[in-house]
Amino acid sequence: MFVIGSGGRHLEDEIKALGGEVLDVEIKRFPDGEKYVRVLGSSRDVTVVSSTFAPQDEHIVELILLADALRESGVQRLRAVVPYFAYSRQDRVTKDGEPVSVRAVMRTLAVYYDELYVFDLHNPETLRFFPGKAVNLSPARAIADYFREKLGDGLVLAPDKGALMRARAVAEKLGLEYSHFQKTRISPTEVQMKPVDVDVSGKNVLIVDDIISTGGTMIKAANLLREMGAEKVFVAATHGVFAEGAIERVTKAVDELAVTNTIPTPVSNISIVPDILKL
Amino acid sequence: MFVIGSGGRHLEDEIKALGGEVLDVEIKRFPDGEKYVRVLGSSRDVTVVSSTFAPQDEHIVELILLADALRESGVQRLRAVVPYFAYSRQDRVTKDGEPVSVRAVMRTLAVYYDELYVFDLHNPETLRFFPGKAVNLSPARAIADYFREKLGDGLVLAPDKGALMRARAVAEKLGLEYSHFQKTRISPTEVQMKPVDVDVSGKNVLIVDDIISTGGTMIKAANLLREMGAEKVFVAATHGVFAEGAIERVTKAVDELAVTNTIPTPVSNISIVPDILKL
Repeated sequence: MFVIGSGGRHLEDEIKALGGEVLDVEIKRFPDGEKYVRVLGSSRDVTVVSSTFAPQDEHIVELILLADALRESGVQRLRAVVPYFAYSRQDRVTKDGEPVSVRAVMRTLAVYYDELYVFDLHNPETLRFFPGKAVNLSPARAIADYFREKLGDGLVLAPDKGALMRARAVAEKLGLEYSHFQKTRISPTEVQMKPVDVDVSGKNVLIVDDIISTGGTMIKAANLLREMGAEKVFVAATHGVFAEGAIERVTKAVDELAVTNTIPTPVSNISIVPDILKL
Repeated sequence: MFVIGSGGRHLEDEIKALGGEVLDVEIKRFPDGEKYVRVLGSSRDVTVVSSTFAPQDEHIVELILLADALRESGVQRLRAVVPYFAYSRQDRVTKDGEPVSVRAVMRTLAVYYDELYVFDLHNPETLRFFPGKAVNLSPARAIADYFREKLGDGLVLAPDKGALMRARAVAEKLGLEYSHFQKTRISPTEVQMKPVDVDVSGKNVLIVDDIISTGGTMIKAANLLREMGAEKVFVAATHGVFAEGAIERVTKAVDELAVTNTIPTPVSNISIVPDILKL
């Protein structure tokens, strides 16, 4: 049985259409700003679905309030599906006195939830901070299916070596070649990017990353691919954490931009709902 | 050693002026809305001070992020002083499917904090949800000191029987009489209020409650006291969770309205900082 939080509202119709049973919830705000939640009905096993995009902290606290209500109503096994996990990029201490914020959020959810499911976590190793069962789901199948026809016999590139496993996962589903861009500092202010060990000329290319924010790297990569003779250039990411104007800027630079619906955006055309229903 | 969160910023100068040692913190927001915190310096024992007024959820998550940073830096004993505790009025299940939201927040803070100090919690029994040491501090001394001269040989009233212990605590510090209002339903739409077993005529009266929101009850009580011949009417509360326009409306109806600074408002003239420094 599913319970959908405010950060999962955009997935609800599809969850129902694909046969997911959903308990009704009432979520409102008191005049002083406090949230009020109520879950109508109960079940032994419940999966709460809510991403934690902005307003992140409200979505996090709501996950805890919903869980308290569900435990109160007798739920035995409580799973959280948090497709986009806030604070996932604050995954290490880089200066003394910083928190590992993603750990703080995972430990908070663990007060109530037995299991945690996320999509394409920025640093999958941080799942160790969740003491229960914690699973990092891949959107590779969804992204591959979406771009299969458009890409034809093209290739898949990661914007940097760190994202290579993402490009590989998508490429393997499509039986295509994959590689990554290499960044080389050529002057104090200039970084040169180029794809490693692949010939892009005459090929359709899909660039895949986990998060797009400003889109700057994607635009630079796309422009470079065109200069190198690439045919069509597509950009995909799991999480569209777009800065203002980023969708327009990236869209202008490429043939198509598409992200998954872990976060609702105008280009969240790749659905991860089938993956949620398989859990 | 103190660390001051965003919900305690308004107390910082006074904490320092009264000799409290405060570690510097850096708190900012990333463009995507995530908070970033950093504590400069550390100590073996740290007391984090932050109320959780609106935006409540941000203040709650920040308490967790600060605590993660402090634990990371080696703090052994971590205390939270949360003068105004959000969700404190959501203290019981009134309809099936509701959470006990105050429990959810207390259990969340308990992930990191050993001890919790709050002021005048709406339902002090809910402190049992915090597994560590949990203390409900009284603002009675601060309120009594503030109104001592103005009140003279007046009396102290609670707006209802449930708040009587608050009126008593203030009255006892001043050596004055105290009582409470009684509400009687006289028609389906009308409730009559009157003070029980006291003669207010010619007396200064202080009405004391824990929270003022709309101020409706206070205004009704003040008007009634004037009709009954009371001299000056003062209103005090611990937490000024004022709805829009409430400060103006209450101020117009009484001789003085003052609340403590658990929440910063234009009438938060009663300081609980000395009580924090005594911990």
